[in-house]
Amino acid sequence: MNANKGRLYGVGVGPGDPELLTLKALRLLRAAPVVAYQSATDKESIARAIVSQYLSGNQIEVQFHLPRALEPEKAQAIYDKEVEPIAEHLAAGRDVVVLCEGDPFFYGSFMYVFTRLSEQYETEVVPGVSSLMACPVALGVPFTYYNDILTVLPAPMPAEELTTQLLTTDAAAIMKLGRHFTKVRDILHQLGLASRALYIERATMSQQRIVPLDEVNPAEVPYFAMIVIPSKNRL
Amino acid sequence: MNANKGRLYGVGVGPGDPELLTLKALRLLRAAPVVAYQSATDKESIARAIVSQYLSGNQIEVQFHLPRALEPEKAQAIYDKEVEPIAEHLAAGRDVVVLCEGDPFFYGSFMYVFTRLSEQYETEVVPGVSSLMACPVALGVPFTYYNDILTVLPAPMPAEELTTQLLTTDAAAIMKLGRHFTKVRDILHQLGLASRALYIERATMSQQRIVPLDEVNPAEVPYFAMIVIPSKNRL
Repeated sequence: MNANKGRLYGVGVGPGDPELLTLKALRLLRAAPVVAYQSATDKESIARAIVSQYLSGNQIEVQFHLPRALEPEKAQAIYDKEVEPIAEHLAAGRDVVVLCEGDPFFYGSFMYVFTRLSEQYETEVVPGVSSLMACPVALGVPFTYYNDILTVLPAPMPAEELTTQLLTTDAAAIMKLGRHFTKVRDILHQLGLASRALYIERATMSQQRIVPLDEVNPAEVPYFAMIVIPSKNRL
Repeated sequence: MNANKGRLYGVGVGPGDPELLTLKALRLLRAAPVVAYQSATDKESIARAIVSQYLSGNQIEVQFHLPRALEPEKAQAIYDKEVEPIAEHLAAGRDVVVLCEGDPFFYGSFMYVFTRLSEQYETEVVPGVSSLMACPVALGVPFTYYNDILTVLPAPMPAEELTTQLLTTDAAAIMKLGRHFTKVRDILHQLGLASRALYIERATMSQQRIVPLDEVNPAEVPYFAMIVIPSKNRL
């Protein structure tokens, strides 16, 4: 690695509340000449909104977009192209902080930047508070005790697999609900888990909403919604 | 709730690096007249060590000890007694910050304080960076992609159950290794997972150690050691 190149930072900014940034994330963010974040071209970046109050106004901002649900081959080419502006700043000797909602290595878009650039540029990753921790706290329920098994399940998975997984765990988080909500809710009723399941949207953000499972309108469930099934074990 | 009573705060202090505290945790910690933490009587509290540089020196400190591996009935009585000093400060109108390694509701001892005191005293919980996020970052490996299933497995569980769980997940974290290391390592070899498994001790602490799985000395594996099996999926 060349000392004249910039350093790449993947920085977790937490689940939404700007006060849930770590001290390290804030330090690196304030020192960075270039701040990059993922966002569809017509939408505000959630990660940028979380840290907007900490930006100096003199920092270069780089927006990139890694669309989901593409065929792998097509995605490769698009992702390669989207990270190019970041690489150019690094090559020119400018450090780049890439903002990541939650934690960078936990279902994070930063991983696609990391796999493309971390071999050529010195890279440091800063873990963040994940929605997996923020949602149970916002709901006010202790999540996992002692020797509990915890399973994290993305809602788009097939109903059969979701059922099997829910039958063999002590506690679960079902993420990325969106249009998969009705499937998940029905499975929870079938398994007798609905009374333990807690629904939350946009935990710790100003738009946070907690709704009883059976009062959720399936047509309005966002991607950033989670169902938490806390452990039954207590002491 | 009585306005003259103190407020109870359960504050995640992150995995070890004092810079991985959140801004909110630091603000509450600095403002608290009473700081409580769990520790065996003859040992330094890990949570206190993480935040020691942020303590004012004028704060009242309360140490409590919730021993593990007791019969439930015996534990109940001891836990009830151990949280009494915290309750006394709250009843006298003093806010108490209870320090929690990692995140308070994720396998945290704070949950035993919470279940005993949160109905009588106004309580706020602050999520923290968990070792579940800190370990993959410290190891430099992206952990979970897209629609991966992630399973968190405490090492003390029976070998058969551990095997079944590992066969039905995309990514896994095996926690609380300690004296269960050999059992886990042997299962990983049987399942062909050993080459993907990464071992780390005390992630982000000054004593952090990363050791190849087959070079780990089973007699020296601490409780705060984790095996991370990152997802095979990439893009």
